[in-house]
Amino acid sequence: MPRIRVHCFSVSLDGFGAGPDQGPEDPLGVGGHLLHEWLFDTAYGRAMAGEDDGSTGVDDAWLRRGDAGVGATVMGRNMFGPVRGAWSDESWTGWWGSDPPFHHDVFVLTHHERPSLQMEGGTTFHFVTDGLEPALARAVEAAGGLDVRIGGGAATVRTALARGLVDDLHVVVVPVLLGAGERLWDADGAWPHDYALVEHEASDAVTHYRFARSPNAGAA
Amino acid sequence: MPRIRVHCFSVSLDGFGAGPDQGPEDPLGVGGHLLHEWLFDTAYGRAMAGEDDGSTGVDDAWLRRGDAGVGATVMGRNMFGPVRGAWSDESWTGWWGSDPPFHHDVFVLTHHERPSLQMEGGTTFHFVTDGLEPALARAVEAAGGLDVRIGGGAATVRTALARGLVDDLHVVVVPVLLGAGERLWDADGAWPHDYALVEHEASDAVTHYRFARSPNAGAA
Repeated sequence: MPRIRVHCFSVSLDGFGAGPDQGPEDPLGVGGHLLHEWLFDTAYGRAMAGEDDGSTGVDDAWLRRGDAGVGATVMGRNMFGPVRGAWSDESWTGWWGSDPPFHHDVFVLTHHERPSLQMEGGTTFHFVTDGLEPALARAVEAAGGLDVRIGGGAATVRTALARGLVDDLHVVVVPVLLGAGERLWDADGAWPHDYALVEHEASDAVTHYRFARSPNAGAA
Repeated sequence: MPRIRVHCFSVSLDGFGAGPDQGPEDPLGVGGHLLHEWLFDTAYGRAMAGEDDGSTGVDDAWLRRGDAGVGATVMGRNMFGPVRGAWSDESWTGWWGSDPPFHHDVFVLTHHERPSLQMEGGTTFHFVTDGLEPALARAVEAAGGLDVRIGGGAATVRTALARGLVDDLHVVVVPVLLGAGERLWDADGAWPHDYALVEHEASDAVTHYRFARSPNAGAA
């Protein structure tokens, strides 16, 4: 069975996946950029910027594992871009330039219809207006037997966890305190009991935690 | 100047310092005991149980550092014991037997008066009914130039953080998900911005984070 996976989801030590006051000019909220500095220091992250330097240790290895075996991605609209409400035009094509790093079908959750968007390198963005479960079902089909990754952001991951839809959860705790923002952990007891810690590993920058849902858990 | 310090304060990965449904038979709430297993595996923790085995690595060293230079302790009533409301009698003398591991004055926050309680080994419990700041002031005086440690529990530490009273904060993230309980991180942006990460270090069991308040921070 394909698994639904979350990888490299960064949270502050106090549990926020984005800072407060998210908006077009501050898409990750105040202080939210601090959650991703560890990524941009790696060879993986530097390659996204077209550079060939960067670290190749623990963090880089976790980033590469997050892509392995993934055949489709689901993400919230805010992860796709800063545009809110109806798509006023179709000029926004994501944060990632003409050749996004997915190289497979990406299903973007939105309330507003928009035609699919075929990019270079094998990435096609599809806009799904009927909710998370239908998006996951389409992604599973598109993945052709590979796994499906939920890319983020915090609200999408939190919702997926609360609904028991995530099989494999890798979170990265960044040692900063944001004090406010969008919580990842806000399920009030609804979900975590089915998950077991599989691995945890610290780098100089962050600590990685991977949880897996027990195959015979109730919600599975 | 003496510093107000928090040490070895254990939180689950999802930010809870105690599980849900705390009560006399489950003083740390459901699942809360999982937050302290790392401690009882160390030589420091084993010595509290009268044993001379236990690990002597990273976790043990952090536990010993938490005691160094501390001349008095402040704690919430729930950390002192499970009794609620007025002290029906004075038979409860803490969780720690006749010779508690403090060996100095301990100020217990409570709404109900009770005479001080002198134990073996230099520990005296004082019961403070006029709030956290007066308790800290008395503790600073009793510490005679050494630092004051806030022992816990979660509510006391959270309140102290929200009021800007903590100079040095060492939290221990335990890789379990409790899903509900008493949050440590619930200050809604009021406090963390003055704190800088000083150290973080992982053991096989947990990850340690130490934050210090900038000496010229507003609330200091």
